[in-house]
Amino acid sequence: MKNLLIASTSTVHGSSYLEYILDDLAEFFKASEEIIFIPYARPGGISHDDYTAIAQKGFDAIGKQVTGIHTFSDPIEALKNAKAVFTGGGNTFLLVSQLYKLDVMPTLRARIFEGMHYFGTSAGANITGLTMQTTNDMPIMYPPSFKTLGAIPFNINPHYLDPDPSSTHKGETRETRIKEFHTINTQPVIGLREGSWLEVKNDRIILKGNLQARVFEQNKPPYEIESGSEVRF
Amino acid sequence: MKNLLIASTSTVHGSSYLEYILDDLAEFFKASEEIIFIPYARPGGISHDDYTAIAQKGFDAIGKQVTGIHTFSDPIEALKNAKAVFTGGGNTFLLVSQLYKLDVMPTLRARIFEGMHYFGTSAGANITGLTMQTTNDMPIMYPPSFKTLGAIPFNINPHYLDPDPSSTHKGETRETRIKEFHTINTQPVIGLREGSWLEVKNDRIILKGNLQARVFEQNKPPYEIESGSEVRF
Repeated sequence: MKNLLIASTSTVHGSSYLEYILDDLAEFFKASEEIIFIPYARPGGISHDDYTAIAQKGFDAIGKQVTGIHTFSDPIEALKNAKAVFTGGGNTFLLVSQLYKLDVMPTLRARIFEGMHYFGTSAGANITGLTMQTTNDMPIMYPPSFKTLGAIPFNINPHYLDPDPSSTHKGETRETRIKEFHTINTQPVIGLREGSWLEVKNDRIILKGNLQARVFEQNKPPYEIESGSEVRF
Repeated sequence: MKNLLIASTSTVHGSSYLEYILDDLAEFFKASEEIIFIPYARPGGISHDDYTAIAQKGFDAIGKQVTGIHTFSDPIEALKNAKAVFTGGGNTFLLVSQLYKLDVMPTLRARIFEGMHYFGTSAGANITGLTMQTTNDMPIMYPPSFKTLGAIPFNINPHYLDPDPSSTHKGETRETRIKEFHTINTQPVIGLREGSWLEVKNDRIILKGNLQARVFEQNKPPYEIESGSEVRF
């Protein structure tokens, strides 16, 4: 049994934090009054308390209590007792380093496979994949491994960005980067555009939101899938 | 004694491979007929031979012989005998993984500190810094360390890109990423725009090309330096 929402971003242009996905969050978290928040990705170096306050503000609209995992003396015990977890975005290298350092990765994975409700945005979405190797983030910290939760049988590229045909910049496009990933790695990658998310119910994975997603498989041309369709390989 | 050219990119929009920097390369490499090419970053997964052929074509205009390091049975011995080295761009994680795997990092560093002429573009520029942690690349391979050559007392961000004020995308800007780097790392970072390079003569480092570069120091607002100015911290 698995229950996950895996979202490209916490915020879409022109709306407030989590606003675009609140209806689905209300349904997803309907059995949980309290959500344990994992703030380790710490965007912009803000404190864990400050980041948790942002998450709380987002969840106020649907009446949920958000508690930072950093406020527990034993984060592993906190995860064992959690009914619901939300991991926010920021830097994936930092997030994964912290999850390994505190040794919470195995417990988080075990709870997800037991059916605990998990919601992740951006870096928090990236870590649900097999590895964090299709992150867009800068490697500001050296994690002990790139292996992540493996809650889904592929990798996520959050904030997926289409190439800009008018660009004169010579840095690689996102599509080129993912193609480079596939020169030495075999797992499929879902490029989730901002405003898209995956809903995982056990082994059934559905694309949600208004947009298409771009799918990359090794040795195949990339292709689009429609919102509402099932992701299968 | 050190002699390096550290370039943001191999190619600027609207011109051919290395064309924008050929006059300086002719002067820089005037004492070397042969340049040893390090193709390990392998952009787009092409073969080492194919990548070396691209580099050779670029250097044909100034009459240099380019020899891929992969054609030597002993790459360490090849570096020990080299008068000049060029490392091309691609993926920095792949490049650094290979440099460690083949154990050539210490020899390359030693030869650079002895005064061997070194030219690097993009990933090949990134590795001249203290660490590869301000690369823009996707972590497609797990290197044994992020530590790089330390030929200069700071880090490089190649292909530096200014924020687009009209963008609605919520992914981090380059400036935000480098600020995140500085929440946990102390070394300065030079953001080199495409068409800029650093000329290193011993400990004197001069910004070259037509553009300004953006300098990031921990706990300071970022600032611009002019072409022709010396980089000092």
